[in-house]
Amino acid sequence: MDHIRTIEWRDGRVRLVDQTRLPGELVHVETDDFRRLGESIKRLEVRGAPAIGVAGAMGVALAALECDATSTDELRSCVREAAAHLAATRPTAVNLTWAIDRSLRILDDPANATADAVRDALVAEAIAILEEDRLLCRAIGRHGAALLADGDGVLTHCNAGGLATAEYGTALAVIYTAVEEGKKIRVFADETRPLLQGARLTAWELMEHGIDVTLLCDSAAASAMARGLVDKVIVGADRIAGNGDVANKIGTYPLALAAKRHGVPFYVAAPYSTLDASLATGEEIPIEERSADEVTGFGGCRTAPEGVAAFNPAFDVTPAELVAAIITDVGVFEPPFGETLFRKDRSS
Amino acid sequence: MDHIRTIEWRDGRVRLVDQTRLPGELVHVETDDFRRLGESIKRLEVRGAPAIGVAGAMGVALAALECDATSTDELRSCVREAAAHLAATRPTAVNLTWAIDRSLRILDDPANATADAVRDALVAEAIAILEEDRLLCRAIGRHGAALLADGDGVLTHCNAGGLATAEYGTALAVIYTAVEEGKKIRVFADETRPLLQGARLTAWELMEHGIDVTLLCDSAAASAMARGLVDKVIVGADRIAGNGDVANKIGTYPLALAAKRHGVPFYVAAPYSTLDASLATGEEIPIEERSADEVTGFGGCRTAPEGVAAFNPAFDVTPAELVAAIITDVGVFEPPFGETLFRKDRSS
Repeated sequence: MDHIRTIEWRDGRVRLVDQTRLPGELVHVETDDFRRLGESIKRLEVRGAPAIGVAGAMGVALAALECDATSTDELRSCVREAAAHLAATRPTAVNLTWAIDRSLRILDDPANATADAVRDALVAEAIAILEEDRLLCRAIGRHGAALLADGDGVLTHCNAGGLATAEYGTALAVIYTAVEEGKKIRVFADETRPLLQGARLTAWELMEHGIDVTLLCDSAAASAMARGLVDKVIVGADRIAGNGDVANKIGTYPLALAAKRHGVPFYVAAPYSTLDASLATGEEIPIEERSADEVTGFGGCRTAPEGVAAFNPAFDVTPAELVAAIITDVGVFEPPFGETLFRKDRSS
Repeated sequence: MDHIRTIEWRDGRVRLVDQTRLPGELVHVETDDFRRLGESIKRLEVRGAPAIGVAGAMGVALAALECDATSTDELRSCVREAAAHLAATRPTAVNLTWAIDRSLRILDDPANATADAVRDALVAEAIAILEEDRLLCRAIGRHGAALLADGDGVLTHCNAGGLATAEYGTALAVIYTAVEEGKKIRVFADETRPLLQGARLTAWELMEHGIDVTLLCDSAAASAMARGLVDKVIVGADRIAGNGDVANKIGTYPLALAAKRHGVPFYVAAPYSTLDASLATGEEIPIEERSADEVTGFGGCRTAPEGVAAFNPAFDVTPAELVAAIITDVGVFEPPFGETLFRKDRSS
């Protein structure tokens, strides 16, 4: 299967899929200007935590190539300024800060004695971050694919796909791998209000990969389960608490309730780094409340009365007891998660 | 509380709220031409089973007034032709056929000896159908209001409000009555994908009546319950099986699952005539599958890839065991519905 490359490094330039143009058309942004790349992050042309991290590191590398400093000191200050600019494009994106900081550590590595050596090392680091993400997603896919059977109907929510990562995704990696293994999978993609990532992105990337996909309103998922159309649910995760409670896109929790009712296994697929051991339970996960505008309309179409109040949490928390397994890059974890997630002897 | 009159008879003319213009603006259609009224039914300017029934009967009356026949025979054939035209505007709407047939029985009543007597009787019948609907909705409100407490947060789905009936609604009648009794009620209105009746109509009519309303995506309802914001759920019903299983707008069933999980009473409010005793359980209720277009776009904006398949059932079935009570015009029924719904000694 030839995968969409969400973001890549090409001879000193960054090339990325402009996700704001999907699903209407597949357009790429290609630039050697870190400011333009910063705009891409800001405008959500590139989105999804891992993909944003890759973009941040590539932006730092672009800044180093652009800066004509000949001394390492000059180059350092030049790159640090660009890094601050890039980090400010989406200040709450943890992966962005993480990847930029990782690149900045190159600046202080005495092994890079010349400005050109620093430049080369920054480019190499950005490519390494992308490659690590690819391997990690592949590992999630490999571990999870064993849970899917030939002929399964699999329901997913939001976009935990290649478009959120360098190329392969988390929840969708499991599906891609199962399909590559020769299993026939029929995917049900929740449209995912309010921002419709399921309709715009998940449906699009599955169709691009020739996978059978059926779109449905979030509120129709329970009916699909009641009719026996869904054998497994697989979703991504934004944060996982120490006891296995899962924060993910709003609408995940009611899916888990319906899955429980209909005896459908509910799986979560995410990098092991999504586990936040500092949080005992999901109650401690802060939930971002977003603008009412997202609920009162879509894409410029206003549908609700002016001035109406809205309740618009970005995420919900699915209690661990509703989760059949957590699929990660280091292996598959089963309940009781409070024990298994931290076990050193886990198999992968 | 001064209620919006969804449809009314005014000196030989019909005046109705053009619901396709809501929530942007409150515009009325006023006509003495039954063809124009037929257009209103077709274009969904008037919608909701009871309101469509009233419109059908009023259309028959308009046709009789317009027809210049002097003999009852001539008038009969004139009116029958118009009735056939009106009935074809929404052929699957059971209430439309029911109301038109009821009006047509007037034609054969020997008590109406002259053409003018027939005309008067048809106008009176249309007004009677409207008045019966008003009384019925008031009775639902009266019976249900006792279930709501001062300060309750009440979640509803779709539009089971005044705009679906002559003026008062079913699920919303319960809320209106509780508010008229002096109770403070905060309503949570699901936007109700795919057609957004909650965002467009329910939020609008509650705001018009000065009731505190908060709009939310359907998939956020479980989170609202998890946070303790919702004390009761009240929804309408399209059909109720003999055992108390309820068919209602898609998205009702997952609400009932979440309500069960959080110990929130889940109420259904509907005319007693919604009970279809010929159906033993909800499995026998036919579920209309609607066009993919409703799911692949949003308020005129296309949001999903061209050619994507969609699963778009118009209704789902909530099992009776998840329903705390069924509120009707003849009284409130509690489980086991298979017995109580058919008991002759019910209290009202």
